[in-house]
Amino acid sequence: MNAEAVMPLEALQALVEEILRKAGASPQAAGAVARTIVAGERDGCASHGVYRLEGCLRTIKAGKVDPRAEPSLSDDGSAVLRVAAKGGFSGPAFELGAPVLAERARKLGLAALVVNDCTHFSALWPEVEVLTDMGLAALALCPSYAVVAPTGGISPLLGTNPLAFGWPRREAPPYVFDFATSAAARGEIELRRRAGETLPEGWALDAEGAPTTDPEQALAGAMLPFGGHKGSALATMIELLAGTMIGDRTSAEALEHLGATSLAPQHGELILAFDPERFAAGRPGNPFDRAEILFDAILGQGARLPSQRRFTARAKTLAAGGLRLSAQEAARLERMRALGLAAVD
Amino acid sequence: MNAEAVMPLEALQALVEEILRKAGASPQAAGAVARTIVAGERDGCASHGVYRLEGCLRTIKAGKVDPRAEPSLSDDGSAVLRVAAKGGFSGPAFELGAPVLAERARKLGLAALVVNDCTHFSALWPEVEVLTDMGLAALALCPSYAVVAPTGGISPLLGTNPLAFGWPRREAPPYVFDFATSAAARGEIELRRRAGETLPEGWALDAEGAPTTDPEQALAGAMLPFGGHKGSALATMIELLAGTMIGDRTSAEALEHLGATSLAPQHGELILAFDPERFAAGRPGNPFDRAEILFDAILGQGARLPSQRRFTARAKTLAAGGLRLSAQEAARLERMRALGLAAVD
Repeated sequence: MNAEAVMPLEALQALVEEILRKAGASPQAAGAVARTIVAGERDGCASHGVYRLEGCLRTIKAGKVDPRAEPSLSDDGSAVLRVAAKGGFSGPAFELGAPVLAERARKLGLAALVVNDCTHFSALWPEVEVLTDMGLAALALCPSYAVVAPTGGISPLLGTNPLAFGWPRREAPPYVFDFATSAAARGEIELRRRAGETLPEGWALDAEGAPTTDPEQALAGAMLPFGGHKGSALATMIELLAGTMIGDRTSAEALEHLGATSLAPQHGELILAFDPERFAAGRPGNPFDRAEILFDAILGQGARLPSQRRFTARAKTLAAGGLRLSAQEAARLERMRALGLAAVD
Repeated sequence: MNAEAVMPLEALQALVEEILRKAGASPQAAGAVARTIVAGERDGCASHGVYRLEGCLRTIKAGKVDPRAEPSLSDDGSAVLRVAAKGGFSGPAFELGAPVLAERARKLGLAALVVNDCTHFSALWPEVEVLTDMGLAALALCPSYAVVAPTGGISPLLGTNPLAFGWPRREAPPYVFDFATSAAARGEIELRRRAGETLPEGWALDAEGAPTTDPEQALAGAMLPFGGHKGSALATMIELLAGTMIGDRTSAEALEHLGATSLAPQHGELILAFDPERFAAGRPGNPFDRAEILFDAILGQGARLPSQRRFTARAKTLAAGGLRLSAQEAARLERMRALGLAAVD
């Protein structure tokens, strides 16, 4: 593999699929997981691209995900669809449920997709964007593992619990945000530790539950929610809706099951899809046109829309006809292709 | 009226209804609005109790709400129900829609209630608690009027856009949060102005879009979202879902329509109801029992649940058999009863 040459996205997809199949994944799982990894790389999200593939292999090797699981869909005709991921990756489960979710949202105006017993290793925006591509608004949430203390508390209980939302746009990439309800991502604390830097106040507690700006102590203690008690309340809501309500693990239970934060957590996921044309029916104005007025007003005063950097990177990748992998990424891929599961600890 | 004596909640309800009927409200609207005001007073929320009644009368007097509007329900059998409030208060519209919303959520697992063209003058928790009382989880959101700048921006565009969530509990008051997506409520800035205090950093911008800690300059400028770009994204999501998607006013349009932030805004509201028993069906464990484990863990480490102070005040009110109104509140009520709309500017 030449780290200098442009690699078409299709070639990267095929390579990542090959690595996953060699690691034991079904063609369906390999395809879905690879699509998420390629999307991350395409959008310039280094931490959600090829880098994550190693984590997938580690989780397979540890026996914490079944890469051959065949997801199955339950549909009783209601507004709640359920896919049993059966201990497999979330990707193939979501891909099975998404078209039915979209159909149901168009029929009923609003529908939910529950994914149970899945290993979710990446961001939520790839799932949200599948739905915005179909003209729907979407909200996705899932627990993670217990590394965040509730505001006013002293020890890890909540997850970094991401919340993602998408709104479709006709002439532009969708309005999409996808953020952790913790003040920072765990990786950011790790990066500051390696760089010998301190943390901003409000990010973390030490093992005794006292505020700390020392990354080492923070990693041994607890992270904090963003935005004080409001972020803490949102993170708790995510535990309730995408954990207990859907009959799946809370972040505390996911950590207990996994025993480590270095592997991708296994739990459930909740995705809501809204059909704006149904919600706006009979009312003045077109909801998509009216949303553009809001976006114009945000941009017009110098503020940014979320994900703008990612969409800029995507446009650049597509214009270049593919990606220029770094030497490190190329070497990483080559190693995984050659060694399979032996490439990871 | 004796400010010293305990006033039963039923008596306060009757008095507030009487004042509203004299101000022109239909019996239905008077009942619903009074229930919200009495609930605020009962829970020790001074700013959402009798104090708000004056605002209602002012909004009636300004001709910005129709207190006789008869809300009507549209139901096509889908997961989206719609109540046209027809320029009336949100209370009677919500009370018309809530039982149908609950029935639909039980039938389909998930349902939404859209309220259009309503004047919403209070918190969202009274609505959320109607649904938790019926064993459902609920999420409620609405725009307000444009007083908040998007993060990175310089001028008012978004509302203080509240987000409320509720989860039913069998042996305790529900888990409920209800917060503005702005860093602070506008009233808090006003209170600091009167007290001659400065604002914490991150609350506001001046009229030129520069950060300020001066309340006077903040009120002439823009408030800021809580939690930086994450709160800003949530506030924008609320504009999209509970504004443009439901074919109703954004916060910018509500302010344009109203011309002032001193009256209750007219716009729409979106309420989602989830039936946890449907979502958890076929999965191990009972969702309500499992949620208690989470609440115990939060409380067990010294953190609080949201609304705890409010529920403590409620318990005290109920134990006392009613409220002891302050002399100021009693005088305010007496004045409104005697003078009707002439009691307000």
